[in-house]
Amino acid sequence: MSDNSTKKQIILEAAARLFRDKGYSATSMRDLADAVQLKASSLYNHIASKEEILQTICFDNAHRFLAGMTEIEQLQVSATHKIEALIRLHIHIAKEDLTSVTAFNDEWRHLSEPHLGNFKSLRKSYESRFKAIIEAGIQAGELRPLHASVLLYTLFSSVRWLYDWFKPERSLSADMLESEIITILLNGMILK
Amino acid sequence: MSDNSTKKQIILEAAARLFRDKGYSATSMRDLADAVQLKASSLYNHIASKEEILQTICFDNAHRFLAGMTEIEQLQVSATHKIEALIRLHIHIAKEDLTSVTAFNDEWRHLSEPHLGNFKSLRKSYESRFKAIIEAGIQAGELRPLHASVLLYTLFSSVRWLYDWFKPERSLSADMLESEIITILLNGMILK
Repeated sequence: MSDNSTKKQIILEAAARLFRDKGYSATSMRDLADAVQLKASSLYNHIASKEEILQTICFDNAHRFLAGMTEIEQLQVSATHKIEALIRLHIHIAKEDLTSVTAFNDEWRHLSEPHLGNFKSLRKSYESRFKAIIEAGIQAGELRPLHASVLLYTLFSSVRWLYDWFKPERSLSADMLESEIITILLNGMILK
Repeated sequence: MSDNSTKKQIILEAAARLFRDKGYSATSMRDLADAVQLKASSLYNHIASKEEILQTICFDNAHRFLAGMTEIEQLQVSATHKIEALIRLHIHIAKEDLTSVTAFNDEWRHLSEPHLGNFKSLRKSYESRFKAIIEAGIQAGELRPLHASVLLYTLFSSVRWLYDWFKPERSLSADMLESEIITILLNGMILK
């Protein structure tokens, strides 16, 4: 990454943290400049507005989840293995890029049109494709015959705490954490 | 309930909805008055400030969770059954009282001291008591030998989506929803 793109990522992560802690509306460009130790005038060299930051964060993350989905859909494996790969995708994105918290914490609701509509379409598409894999798993007798929506939203929701709680320095390693979450969720979903 | 206490509950729920949608900081008493169709001056007959609303919501919910915990701790049943009862407690509170979303959506971070410290202590106490039940279940060989924290936070987090998604009028009944969530989470946790 160039210095400028590194700086931009630092700004985006600081913004995501401020949105989470203060809320999008209450966060000012001044707060953001302070958080990244830049003068407001220098901040504007990197980013034009708070709305632009929100758009960048929302669409970068949406495309990241969708790219992961496209890769996983093409795997020649069972529905259960695809779901395992999707849970890992959620955990990896949560751990690697704090900005993804913004998409989960509903800050995307502050997008203006047409961005809001576009973002909702991407989100809906991701959910439908995920649900199709769950339905295939139920059909194949791999998963418990429950409502696909309940399985989907319970699974989405269950990794949200990583944003609040996960600190890499704790005694629990990132790999062990991942493997334990996978154990809980997969055993919750599959028929044995 | 007297008319006044009904009105107060309506105000609290409207406030919780505004906090969730706009964020606590961005919500004004004027927004709240509009939401409950009162003049600002009448609103102040029921409630003194935004901070008072936040305090009421946070502490009412904290005490509700702790009262549920005290009742469940005293049951003469296995750790697994206690955990099932606790999951039901979380689902019931989510369904019955929208104001509990405030505690989950981290709006409590906006409490001022000493309220913030008091709230954190109550929260920590609830988490410790929940974790003790999980640890007893692991010890007894009922639950998978995973980190109690991972089990606890995955479980807490997994019911958060009810606030965004659950609409009683959908084809899925509230009872069926509850039973499916219990199935997923308990099977994820218990050893068979």
